[in-house]
Amino acid sequence: MSDVFRYFFEPRSVAVIGASKTPGKAGHEILVNMLANGYQGKIFPINPGGEEILGYPSYRSVKEIPEPIDLAVFIVPAEKTLEPLKECAEKKVPAVVIASGGYAEVDQQGANLQEEILKVARSAGMRIIGPNTSGLTSTPANLTTTFFPLGKVRRGPISYIAQTGNFATHTMQWINTAENFGVARVAGLGNKIDIEDSEVLEYLGEDPETKAVLMYVEGFREPRRFLEVAKKVTRKKPVIILKGGRTKAGAERAFSHTASLAGNDSLLDGAFRQAGIARVRRYADLINVAKGIAFQSLPPGRRVSSLAPSGALGVVVADACESAGLKIARHSESSLKKLREISASWVTISNPVDMSAITPILGPVEGYRKVMEILLEDEGADVIVPILLASPRTPAEAYRFLPELSAKYPPKPIYVSFTGDRPAYAQARTYLEERSIPVFSPLEDIFEVLPILCRCREFISPSSLPG
Amino acid sequence: MSDVFRYFFEPRSVAVIGASKTPGKAGHEILVNMLANGYQGKIFPINPGGEEILGYPSYRSVKEIPEPIDLAVFIVPAEKTLEPLKECAEKKVPAVVIASGGYAEVDQQGANLQEEILKVARSAGMRIIGPNTSGLTSTPANLTTTFFPLGKVRRGPISYIAQTGNFATHTMQWINTAENFGVARVAGLGNKIDIEDSEVLEYLGEDPETKAVLMYVEGFREPRRFLEVAKKVTRKKPVIILKGGRTKAGAERAFSHTASLAGNDSLLDGAFRQAGIARVRRYADLINVAKGIAFQSLPPGRRVSSLAPSGALGVVVADACESAGLKIARHSESSLKKLREISASWVTISNPVDMSAITPILGPVEGYRKVMEILLEDEGADVIVPILLASPRTPAEAYRFLPELSAKYPPKPIYVSFTGDRPAYAQARTYLEERSIPVFSPLEDIFEVLPILCRCREFISPSSLPG
Repeated sequence: MSDVFRYFFEPRSVAVIGASKTPGKAGHEILVNMLANGYQGKIFPINPGGEEILGYPSYRSVKEIPEPIDLAVFIVPAEKTLEPLKECAEKKVPAVVIASGGYAEVDQQGANLQEEILKVARSAGMRIIGPNTSGLTSTPANLTTTFFPLGKVRRGPISYIAQTGNFATHTMQWINTAENFGVARVAGLGNKIDIEDSEVLEYLGEDPETKAVLMYVEGFREPRRFLEVAKKVTRKKPVIILKGGRTKAGAERAFSHTASLAGNDSLLDGAFRQAGIARVRRYADLINVAKGIAFQSLPPGRRVSSLAPSGALGVVVADACESAGLKIARHSESSLKKLREISASWVTISNPVDMSAITPILGPVEGYRKVMEILLEDEGADVIVPILLASPRTPAEAYRFLPELSAKYPPKPIYVSFTGDRPAYAQARTYLEERSIPVFSPLEDIFEVLPILCRCREFISPSSLPG
Repeated sequence: MSDVFRYFFEPRSVAVIGASKTPGKAGHEILVNMLANGYQGKIFPINPGGEEILGYPSYRSVKEIPEPIDLAVFIVPAEKTLEPLKECAEKKVPAVVIASGGYAEVDQQGANLQEEILKVARSAGMRIIGPNTSGLTSTPANLTTTFFPLGKVRRGPISYIAQTGNFATHTMQWINTAENFGVARVAGLGNKIDIEDSEVLEYLGEDPETKAVLMYVEGFREPRRFLEVAKKVTRKKPVIILKGGRTKAGAERAFSHTASLAGNDSLLDGAFRQAGIARVRRYADLINVAKGIAFQSLPPGRRVSSLAPSGALGVVVADACESAGLKIARHSESSLKKLREISASWVTISNPVDMSAITPILGPVEGYRKVMEILLEDEGADVIVPILLASPRTPAEAYRFLPELSAKYPPKPIYVSFTGDRPAYAQARTYLEERSIPVFSPLEDIFEVLPILCRCREFISPSSLPG
């Protein structure tokens, strides 16, 4: 495997070709983002004016920089790329991100320019991500090459590869502001003239910062190679793909977007399965799967135990569970006995446990805690799904029994949902996710995510599992 | 149709049998809820102590009340129901809600008690909702009989019937605190010893306050009658059902919950379709469908035009659209010409429109406004789905062009989603929904909802459509 990725994702120095003093310009915002993320390496703005930018002295050319450069980021117009790229080649810059557009996605002239760029890079042993992408983010290095205003990106164990920089960035912004988990490495590959999916996947497979890899792909440049790499990586960690263009309408749209040819989607489906790749069909599921993986270990099996605040929601959960190809766990005799002891006498104990027969006796918090403990103890269940009733009368801290129990029974993952009062839910969700208990709303999202997580786990080789 | 429902949903006076001075007790909280909702009729607490409760003098029996009672709500233990019920019969109270549990759902004794209650009611011409339900809510009458702490319930055009009071109440609390639409009439039917689904549905079919009826049902007492009623109602307004117990696991759970027998689910599917009932399979979709109906007219057809902030999201939308059985609309020649005039020259105009080729030229707000107007004008599209990019730099008010355009092109509904910054999204969502533009997140929810709305519209008779 090429070790160029340490120059991309852990560079000691970055040159920004096309840095600008003007707020709002891409060449300025990229520096703002790098500062906001606390990048600790050296930053060298390159600008023909040579003025100071955001406190950094700028240079007219990389050649003037008196030390080595690991990564050069280009945000100059396409037609002004070649000259400074040659200078980077002379300086032996190992890694280049070309953010600007105006290449093969526009016209033949742009396509020709791409060819020339590639020639320069190849002859110097320089590697390129892009062009036409906002590039990459690497939270372990406190680095982003994105110019889209982002602020500090939250660090976490999830990495992803996106077909385009826009998709990568909008998704990262959503994760950063709507979710409580964080990301490790993000790459938006753009036109993929040099580095493409399989090479990045191979790197992320070995990367100790990366617990799982998500991907949004419209087309593979080298599908066979990609599947070979994926087959190895998925033995070690989950790889989850949303493939754009799986329908006729989507495929037409993908062709006009990235000139990707769709191929036969059901063949692809089989190939993904053989390579151990979990496929999702909804954008939302990519993010929900990431949340499940970020916060809990993968489910050791498909037997689900649940508890719900009403009998009706219990029915809804049982339907969702079976529709998703999961199993409603059978309570052991010992669990049944313990549940009977704390339930109202009139109720038939079943799975999901009807909490309306328990909370009037034990109170909402103690009732859930006791039942959770019984279900976690029961060897017939692999996964616990509590549906809680959010109430303005129950402060978020009341749910601390969930992270406490989760720490006590780590191999049995817990996925939570809520009904009831929305502001109370929002507080409880933040409280729980900050303590690694993932919360999903609506509850059906858990049953979209669970079968995917089960498939990921089924593919991982025993030697790669914790414990 | 029985006119008893005006005593249930528009009572001029309510007696609360089992009213209590003690906060936290059901017999107290129901009065708190009635006051919070601003009920304008007369309230008569009935309590053996005869003390004043929340400012109302209480009575030892309904017989002592010197005026007629339209609705009596029972929250006394099951075994203490019969005596005051007979007094209600004597007083010719037309409508009764029995909130307390402890009947057929518990044991044979409870089942016998139900029989006696029914006898008393039948002989007096008195009608009963329940037992074992928190009852009903009617926002046009500022009334709820729920004891679960709720606060003021938001008024709106959506009515629903639930198998159980718990389900009705938890769902209402979620709608009230997480959504921006409101409800008209809500009934949780509980054990259904007297009034069951079809009769309530018939009433809601005629009710001018009700634009659509949602239902959560585990089993029908009189399925044939229900389907007959539904067939008529669905010609006038949408009826959407989530049927609990559609899988084997769910059916087992439903039987232990409400003794409902599932029957053959695919037969039921066909029967629903023949009756014009739209079926949803996820709890979340019930609420999303309600939102779509509350805020926009039903889609006149299945041809969707969309706009998305990146080419990749355009592909995701096209895939979601086709998977949902909808059509990606073809732009007219005139629209194509107008779109070309405002797009970057390099982009191939397609549907969804790639806004990243337009907003750099026109700005994010003006770009979306112009494209929305072109798509709304185009006769080849029935529905518009804009995917917006939420940004802390774009205040919610910037989206005012959406309600403005919606008012100008009313027959063409608009369903919005967002990517990008979550807090900015939350503000924009509130702003837009307060102006009747529904916002869905994740974007795939729109494509769960749209086919259901299309089916509802396809069943409605032309004479019932507006305009």
